[in-house]
Parts: sequence; structure tokens; C-alpha cells
Amino acid sequence: MPRANAFYAQSGGVTAVINASACGVIETARLHKKEIGKVYAGRNGIIGALREELIDTSRESSGAIRALASTPSGAFGSCRYKLRSIEENRAEYERLIDVFRAHNIRYFFYNGGGDSADTCLKVSQLSKTMGYDLTAIHVPKTIDNDLPITDNSPGFGSVAKYVAVSTREAALDVASMCETSTKVFILEVMGRHAGWIAGAAGLAANSRGDAPQVIIFPEVAFDQTAFLAKVKRTVERDGYCVIVASEGAQTADGKFLSDTGTKDAFGHAQLGGVAPTLATMISSTLGYKYHWAVSDYLQRAARHIASQVDVDQAYAVGKAAVKMALAGKNAVMPAIQRLEGSRYKWRIVEANLAKVANQEKKMPRSFITRDGFGITDKARRYFEPLIQGEAYPDYKRGLPNYIKLKNQLVPKRLPPM
Amino acid sequence: MPRANAFYAQSGGVTAVINASACGVIETARLHKKEIGKVYAGRNGIIGALREELIDTSRESSGAIRALASTPSGAFGSCRYKLRSIEENRAEYERLIDVFRAHNIRYFFYNGGGDSADTCLKVSQLSKTMGYDLTAIHVPKTIDNDLPITDNSPGFGSVAKYVAVSTREAALDVASMCETSTKVFILEVMGRHAGWIAGAAGLAANSRGDAPQVIIFPEVAFDQTAFLAKVKRTVERDGYCVIVASEGAQTADGKFLSDTGTKDAFGHAQLGGVAPTLATMISSTLGYKYHWAVSDYLQRAARHIASQVDVDQAYAVGKAAVKMALAGKNAVMPAIQRLEGSRYKWRIVEANLAKVANQEKKMPRSFITRDGFGITDKARRYFEPLIQGEAYPDYKRGLPNYIKLKNQLVPKRLPPM
Repeated sequence: MPRANAFYAQSGGVTAVINASACGVIETARLHKKEIGKVYAGRNGIIGALREELIDTSRESSGAIRALASTPSGAFGSCRYKLRSIEENRAEYERLIDVFRAHNIRYFFYNGGGDSADTCLKVSQLSKTMGYDLTAIHVPKTIDNDLPITDNSPGFGSVAKYVAVSTREAALDVASMCETSTKVFILEVMGRHAGWIAGAAGLAANSRGDAPQVIIFPEVAFDQTAFLAKVKRTVERDGYCVIVASEGAQTADGKFLSDTGTKDAFGHAQLGGVAPTLATMISSTLGYKYHWAVSDYLQRAARHIASQVDVDQAYAVGKAAVKMALAGKNAVMPAIQRLEGSRYKWRIVEANLAKVANQEKKMPRSFITRDGFGITDKARRYFEPLIQGEAYPDYKRGLPNYIKLKNQLVPKRLPPM
Repeated sequence: MPRANAFYAQSGGVTAVINASACGVIETARLHKKEIGKVYAGRNGIIGALREELIDTSRESSGAIRALASTPSGAFGSCRYKLRSIEENRAEYERLIDVFRAHNIRYFFYNGGGDSADTCLKVSQLSKTMGYDLTAIHVPKTIDNDLPITDNSPGFGSVAKYVAVSTREAALDVASMCETSTKVFILEVMGRHAGWIAGAAGLAANSRGDAPQVIIFPEVAFDQTAFLAKVKRTVERDGYCVIVASEGAQTADGKFLSDTGTKDAFGHAQLGGVAPTLATMISSTLGYKYHWAVSDYLQRAARHIASQVDVDQAYAVGKAAVKMALAGKNAVMPAIQRLEGSRYKWRIVEANLAKVANQEKKMPRSFITRDGFGITDKARRYFEPLIQGEAYPDYKRGLPNYIKLKNQLVPKRLPPM
């Protein structure tokens, strides 16, 4: 392929390390100037392409691009926006092609989760379906860790570390207060349909019986009687009980424990409030004094306590995406493969995007204890390597010195959509 | 005073650095073996004295005591328990004296906030009122920063750092998503009657107009109309709005925005749920998509991002308490004094405990902007030095390696209470 420009966009919920993937893409592209001209980043994801709002990353210094590796959130803006099928909305794809052609964009890097992989897959077919030659590579990202094929998803390791650290710390607090005060502490964590994040909180325990004594997974139908009995036994045994609850906790009939009734742009129910729901349940039946926390965005933005392994992997998938594009691949995704052996090692392999899109990988039942309220040793062996290393950002005047890019837009060449 | 033993207890809500004060007390006492025999720690605070549950800290290695300086929560257990006056419950004071006499305890170090200072003051009068010679020193601690006389309270600087870091991180997240998703993010922080913690979140802003654009202080009567107008203006200007709300937010008639109706052992209303209350208010009137977080215990246990200045000061007040006791002082508290000058410097001075007990220091009005929703430059100059330095704990297998003491009890010499 002759020298052409690249388009990079961030999609869906952002993470503590998605910018490390951006850094990997841009730094690697800069090393291949013969093949790749400029990297244009979509302002607010794919919407930036539709609106012809393209950020010229070549205006950023190498230091600024490097600083992306230690800055959370989406530096170019992200979006929740799902392209419909070509049959349903051909005009949208024609617009994409118009913008790409106007700016000589022949490489497409899309950094997102399962829904975004579907968008990337559609874009990868433009060559076949609409005759526009384009190489599309998906760069995996999701705190939910629910992408198939890849051993884990960049973004997850840092959330896992955050919730494990926070759970360990809050548990010490409750343990020291429980004699006369709070007996039950509930931490609500993210994970709409998969309990990976809640499960990772189980790492806070050094040995069996340590807090968190109860974990609520979306994969296990919530049984109120069994739950309350477990909490009561735990308080009677330990003096206190720490509960980590996934926002996706649901009953056997698929009803979320706390459904606010609103939906996001992908049509998913917007959740929140499992912790106060459980707290009220415990207080009204068992009478224990409780506290609860909802970490919400704090958990996925917590670059200050990011996992070094996660940062390294996020960078590596960005770098590998560019390498795959240069090798002429299309409709693929760099995936993380865990190698055999007692010491944790990983490498990047190529995954077929058609097998990634719109799939959700749940926690295997073998990762959850028989009673449904804890993680097994097998799960610990899976989770533990992913939280290794503290990738501390630089600080200035007591606060992380996160980079704010210039984000200069390329002059438009087309009339508005 | 001839060689005698010391009693040390932790009281009230614990912090990320109260164990650093314990470390300061115990390490300093160990340097003065001629005057101070053993340091006995109350198991679960003053209750440990009443029950004769005394932890023998001499059984802990110097390494274990050192590790306290980087371990959050109350290593010996804390309690919410307020001694009544001697007139009201003389038997309780007689019991304390019996226990102290049985174990030759003549030094009393009480590590707590305003309510605990009152307890310490009562104990300091035992010599006068009940003829038992005892030196009582209060060691200040409270995340609420509401103790008078001292420039700031150990425990506050680390919470301040945590909320400022978390607010900066979450704000980046919201900013990157706001085009198609969440427009309003609300972080609820602690602070029952004083807005110090909420105010410290204002440090997240690098310049005027940065997030958090709205802070809700207990010191400013909540005005729903003004609040909603400010949120609307902010979203229209910036595309998103980050709100930090103190749990103590209240209307002009003194009603908490979210009062659960339950009270703690000190008779204080137990709060929680301001964030969802505000979220519902915004959603139903302005229609913005929102997210909210409640950091609860996470903020006061977050030793992983503790302020170095805070850790140093927590240690220093512990050390100074022992020095004051050895100098024959009674009914005093080591207080932090900020020295004049452009560079932040501090020293420990002696405060009269009678002037500390049962007082609450609120945010001065001059720290709050005229519209009531932000902090002034004066407030920034006060807060900023307190969050300097990252006192990272050691990590083991990806998690902070917090110490768990042996906490061996001294054999009882008295019949139960």
C-alpha cells in the first residue's frame, strides 16, 4: 500500500490505560513514516470521522505522546455510538469513506470493547462492500474483561488492582471499627454482565476467610436467603463482613438488583445502586449497622494505582495493531495470549475480528466457589499476574501530572454531513 | 514520676495514618525505657481499658511497629464510645483506675478527634477528681479536619489527596465521554458538619473553570435553584459538570439532603446518599445523563495514596505526645502550627485540651467563593501543602503489604467489669 494516513479512535467507556494504547499506536506509526503519514485521531471516537473532526496528532511532541502512557481517560474523547449495518444506514458508511478519501486515510485503528469490535468489523468490510481500500484493526480495551479470545482485556488489570487495593484497605477500616460501629461494608463495582471486576476484589484476601467474605457475581443468580445467611454467619464469626457486589447482580429471572430503568446509547440498562439496595436488605432483616461505597468512574479512571502489566499490555496491543496493519492484515485484533509455565508470561497473537465482535466472555463457573460467594484458587491464579507492578504517574504539586493534548483539528475539506 | 506503663488507644473513625501516630508513640516510648515501661494498647479503644483487654505492644518487633507507619486503619481496633461525666457514671471511671492501677499505667495517650478529646480531658482530671496520678495527652486525628487550634488534623491530608486525585481522574473520564454519554458526575465525600474534604477536591482544578465546577459545602445552605442553574450553565459551557458533594450538605433549615434517620453511638445522624439525591434532582429537572460515586471508607483508608506530609505529621504528633508526657504535661494536645513564609513549614506546639474538646472548626467563609460552589485562592494556599508527597506503601504480589500485628493480650488481673 502506498503511503497513507491513519485514523485512530477511542470508543465506549474509557479506562486508566486506553491512552497507553493510543501511545503505542502513535509511537509505532511514527517509526514507519514511509508507510504511514499522519495519525488522525477521531474527536469523540467514530463521531469525529462522521463529522470530519480529525485531530492532527503530528502536532503533539514526542514527550506529549509519551505522557499518554500515564494519563487515564480518552485523550481524544470517546463515544457511545454504534454504527448500524450497511443495509440499514448506507449513507453513514458513504460519509465515512468520503472523509477517509478526503484525508487519504487507509488505516483504521479502533480502540474499544465488544460493541466497538462490531463497528470495526463493519468498517473492515468497506473494501469488499463499497470498494474503498482500507485496513481496519481493532485495538482491544474494556475494563469489563469480557472480550473473547484474548486472555484478558487491557484496562481490566488496573481496575482489578484498584478494587483489590480498595477492598483490602476498606476491610481493615471496618475490622478496626466493628466492635462498636459498622459491621457490614458493601463496595459496588462495575461489570454489567460479567463478574470479573468483582472477582478480582477477592485478591484482597491473603488467606481463606479474609475479607471480602462475600462477592456477588452477575453469573450467579442472587439468592436473598442464602446471602443473608452468609452475611450473618460471617459477622458472627469475624465480627464484620465485607461484601463486594457487581453492579450486574441479578436474580434468577434476570432482573437486576437495582435497575434505574434508563438505558444507554447501546440499549443497555443503566445500573447503579446495588450497594444501597443490599445495605437496606441487611439492615432491615439482620439489623447490622452498615456503610457502602460505589466506586463508579473512580475505578476505571484510577491511573494513580494502575497495574504495570496492564499498562505494558495496553501499549503492546496498540503497537501490534500498527504492525498488523503494515503486514497487510485486515479485520483482526491483537489479542493477549498467556503462555504456559509457573511464571507469568504473555505475548500478542492475532485474533479474527469476526470471532470477537458482540461476544461476552463471562467468569467460568470454575472461578467461583461452590457457594457462589467467593473466588477459587484457579481464579486467583488467573487474576494475580494481571495486577502486578505499580505504574505510578509523575506528580506535580501533590497531584498526578496528567497530559492535556493540544488536540488541533485538521481543516475540513468537506461540507457538513 | 517513677517508671510506669503507658496506655494508648485509638478512638472514633480511623484514618490512613492513625497507625503512623501509634508508631510515633510506641517508637518514642521505646527510646525512653527509664521512664516508660511498656506501652499497652487498648483493644478497640477505651473499651479495651474498661474490659481490661490490653494489647502488649512490647511483643511486636521494631519492624512491625515501623510498618504501622504505612498501614491504614486502627491496628489495635478503635471504637465509638463516649465516656459520660464523672457525676453521671462514676463506676466507669473507677473501673478505669482499677485497670490502670493493676497494670501500673500512669501515662494515657488517646488518639482521636473532637469527641475523643472530651474523653481524654475527663481522664486527665482523674488525678484531681479521684486521686489517681495519671498523665493524659490527646493525640489529634480526624479526617474531618475540624479540630480547633491545630492548623490541620492528621488524617485529613491523605483524604484530601485521595479526593483531589480521584476527582481529577474521574473528571478526565467524564470529559472524554460527555459528547454522547454522561454529562454530570457526582462524587460524594465525607465531612459531617465541615466541608474541608469537599473543599480539598477543588485542588483537582489546575485553573479556574476546571472540574470540579461545583462543590457543595455543609457551611453553605443548599439552594436547589442556584445549584441547578449552575449545573446547567456549566454543562452548556464545558459539555459536562463534575460535582463534589459533602455528605453533610444541608438546606437552610438544617435538614441534611439525605438523612437516613439512623444515628451513631455519639448520637450523630448517619448520613449517606447525597450523590444519588442530587443525581435524581438533576435528571428529573435538566434531563442530563449522570453517574455518581460514593467513596465512603475508601477515602479514609486509602493509604496507597497517602500524603507524605500527613504521614510525617501523624508520626510527629505521636512522638510529641510522649515528649509532652515525659515533660510532666497533662491535659494537652500536640497541635500543628503553620509557620509564616512562602515555603510551607510546620512545627508542633502544645494546645490546652480544654480548648479542643467538643469544638468543631468549620471552613471559613473566606475559603468559599462568593457563589458558594467553589474554593478561593486562599483555600488553595491552605490545602495544597497538606497533600504534598506520595508516601507509597510497600507492595507484595501486586497489593500493599499492610502489617497485621500479633495483638497479644496481657493476662487479666481483675475480675470482669
